[in-house]
Amino acid sequence: MRDVAVIGIGLTKFGELWDQSFRQLTAEAGSKAILDSGVGGKDIDAMYVGSMSSGRFVGQEHVGALVADASGFSHLHIPSTRVEGACASGSLALREGYLSIASGVNDVVVIGGIEKMNDVGGSAATETLATAADQEWEAFFGVTFPGLYAMIAKRHMHEFKTTREDLARVAVKNHHNGTMNPFAQYQKEISIDTALNATPVAEPLGLMDCSPVTDGAAAVVLCAADRIGDFSGKPVKIIGSGQASDTLSLHGRRDITTLDASVHAGKMAYKQAHLKPSDINLAEVHDCFTIAEICAIEDLGFVKKGEGGKAVENKITTIDGSLPVNTSGGLKSKGHPVGATGVAQIVEITKQLRGEADKRQIKDARIGLAHNVGGSGATCVVNILEGM
Amino acid sequence: MRDVAVIGIGLTKFGELWDQSFRQLTAEAGSKAILDSGVGGKDIDAMYVGSMSSGRFVGQEHVGALVADASGFSHLHIPSTRVEGACASGSLALREGYLSIASGVNDVVVIGGIEKMNDVGGSAATETLATAADQEWEAFFGVTFPGLYAMIAKRHMHEFKTTREDLARVAVKNHHNGTMNPFAQYQKEISIDTALNATPVAEPLGLMDCSPVTDGAAAVVLCAADRIGDFSGKPVKIIGSGQASDTLSLHGRRDITTLDASVHAGKMAYKQAHLKPSDINLAEVHDCFTIAEICAIEDLGFVKKGEGGKAVENKITTIDGSLPVNTSGGLKSKGHPVGATGVAQIVEITKQLRGEADKRQIKDARIGLAHNVGGSGATCVVNILEGM
Repeated sequence: MRDVAVIGIGLTKFGELWDQSFRQLTAEAGSKAILDSGVGGKDIDAMYVGSMSSGRFVGQEHVGALVADASGFSHLHIPSTRVEGACASGSLALREGYLSIASGVNDVVVIGGIEKMNDVGGSAATETLATAADQEWEAFFGVTFPGLYAMIAKRHMHEFKTTREDLARVAVKNHHNGTMNPFAQYQKEISIDTALNATPVAEPLGLMDCSPVTDGAAAVVLCAADRIGDFSGKPVKIIGSGQASDTLSLHGRRDITTLDASVHAGKMAYKQAHLKPSDINLAEVHDCFTIAEICAIEDLGFVKKGEGGKAVENKITTIDGSLPVNTSGGLKSKGHPVGATGVAQIVEITKQLRGEADKRQIKDARIGLAHNVGGSGATCVVNILEGM
Repeated sequence: MRDVAVIGIGLTKFGELWDQSFRQLTAEAGSKAILDSGVGGKDIDAMYVGSMSSGRFVGQEHVGALVADASGFSHLHIPSTRVEGACASGSLALREGYLSIASGVNDVVVIGGIEKMNDVGGSAATETLATAADQEWEAFFGVTFPGLYAMIAKRHMHEFKTTREDLARVAVKNHHNGTMNPFAQYQKEISIDTALNATPVAEPLGLMDCSPVTDGAAAVVLCAADRIGDFSGKPVKIIGSGQASDTLSLHGRRDITTLDASVHAGKMAYKQAHLKPSDINLAEVHDCFTIAEICAIEDLGFVKKGEGGKAVENKITTIDGSLPVNTSGGLKSKGHPVGATGVAQIVEITKQLRGEADKRQIKDARIGLAHNVGGSGATCVVNILEGM
C-alpha cells in the first residue's frame, strides 16, 4: 500500500446558513481545498462525498454527482461517490478516498463532507437524525438521540461516579476552544453554571450537553505521498486508519458505556501507525453530546475506562493540557453538520499539524487523531495524521 | 493491483414484498451469497451496501451498520459502509469493495444492494426517485424521471428515426427473458401491441416503456483471486471496472441522446480488461426505460450511435442474438429495486458465466458486461467479468 497525504483543506463557516444553498456550500469548501492544494481539475482522479441524509434534509440524493458538477468538473467525468454512515459519513468518505489512493487506483482524490440541516422545519431535523438509530427497534418507539446518549450518561454516572459537573466541563472547555475558531457556529464562552442550569433535554443531559443543528461543508484533497512534490499544498500524512461497526441499536450492546466500534477502529489505526495512545499530541473526538467525549477518550485508550470524567476535571483535555481534545470547539461549539463533521475534524488536525491554527495552536503538535461516530456507536472511524 | 473474483451470489425474489422488512430482505440476500461462497463470518474483512434512498423509502439511514448487524455480524465489528449514487448505488458499492481488495487492504468483502420502495404510498416513490435528478433545476419544476427519459427518447427519434416500435421491442424482449427468471417481478410475455397501446406515461413513453417500483435485495461475495482456493464458491473474475460522472441535470449535457458517463465508464472498463465491445458475450444494461437500453448499447460501443433501435429490430440483442442483452429480464421485467439493481446485474452475469442460468443460459458465455446508471446519466458504472 502507498502512503497518502492531505495536501489541501477547505471549510465553510458553520452555522445557520439561510442564504446559502447545499450546492453553494459544497462548491465553497471544495474550491477552497482545491486552491489550497494547488491541484488542477485534470489532476483529480476521483471524488468522495460524505452526507448523512441529504435526501431528507434538502430533498436531494445523488450528491456525489452533484458535488462534481457544482465544482465545475462535469466535463471531466470524474468518478464521484457519495458515502453514508450517519454522523460518520465524512470520515467514511475520507477512508474510501484514502483506500483508493493506497491501492494505486488513484493519485489525487477530493473528499467533501456536507449537510444542510436547517432547511427543514419543526421537529424534522430530530426525526431525520433519528434515522441513524434503529428505526424498527428504537426510533419507532419514540427514542431520539438525546434520549439514547442520556441512557449512556446515566449508566456511566451509575458505574463510574461520573457527575453532571464532569459533563458540563466538557461543554465549557469546547465553547472556550470555539472562541478561537472563526469558523465555529458558537464563538462564546459559557460558564459551568450556564451548562448546569440549561434547559433540560433528556435527563441528565441539558441543552449545553448537546451539539447543535448546523449547516456547513468541509473538503480535503488527498494525494499519493510519492506525488506530493507535484503540487504546492503543504502535506500532512495519514499514517493510520480504522473503521468498525456494532449493533445499530443501543440495547444490543455488551456494555452501553463503551463504544466497541471506537475501541476496534482505534486499535486498527494505532496498529497501522505503529503508535500507542500516549503518542498522540491532540485529538478531535466525536462530542455530539458531552458524555460522548468522555466515552471517546476512554475508548481510544487516552485514559482508563471510567476515568473520563475525572480526566476532564483534572484539565488533561484542555488546550493547555497534556492531551488537548477538540481544539476546534468540537461538535458542541464548532457545530455538527453531520455529513461534514468527519472531514472538518481532518481540516482541524491538518491546521494544527501545519502550525496554522492561530490562537488555538498546540505547540510542537506532530501527531493528531480524529474520531468520528455514526449513530450511538454502530459505525466508528479513527484516522491518525502526522505532520511532515 | 490484485485480481478480484466474485465467489458467492444471492438474490431475493423481486416484487411487491409486503410481508418482508428491509432488514429481512438484506439478511436473506446476504446469507444466500455467504452460503454460496463458503466463507465464514470471521473471513469477512468489510461490507459495502448500495441503497439509493432508504432514508425516504423506509425512514432508515445508516444501513451499512444495519446490514452488518442484520447479518448477525455485530460482534465481529466488521467495517460496513453504505454507498449511494441513485440507481447506480449497487454498482458503486461493488466498485468500492473491488478497490478495497485490489488495494490489498481486504481479502474478502460482502456487497449488498437493497431497496424497499413500496412501503411509501401515493406519489412518494416517484418523488423520492426524483431526488436522483437535480432538485433545484429539474425536480422543483415538476419533472420526474419518465419526463426526463421521454425527452431523451423524443430527441433520439428526431435525430435517428428511432420509432415507438423499436422502444416496444425492448420491452417485449425483456419480458420474454423475464419469463425464464424465477426471481423476476413479472414473469409473463407481453406483445408489441400491448406495449404500444399501454397507458401513456410521458409521451412517447407508455407504461410498458417504464421499469416498475420494486422491493428486493441482492448480494455478492468478492474475494482476492489469490485466496479463492480457500473457499468453495465457484469464482468469476472481475477483469475491468469503470466509473464516470456527468452533469446532474439533463439540460447541461453536450448531447442528450448520449450518456457521456456511460461512454467514459465503458472505455475505462474495456481498457483495464484489454477488450473491445465485440469481445463481450452478453450484457446486463440499465433499461430503466426502454430508450435507456437503446442508448446503452450505443454508448457501450456494441452498435454505432443512432443504430440502437435498428439493432433491436434486427434481433441482435435477443437471447438468441449475437449479443444477448438483459437475459435476466432487465429492470423492465425483473424489476428495479434501485439500490439493488447494480448488484443483481452482477448476480445474473455470474450465473451466466458459471453456466447456472437455466432456461436462459447463453451457450459458451465467457465474458459478460454490467452497465448501471444513476439518474439520467450523472453517474455510470461498468464492470466486465470473465468466467474461470
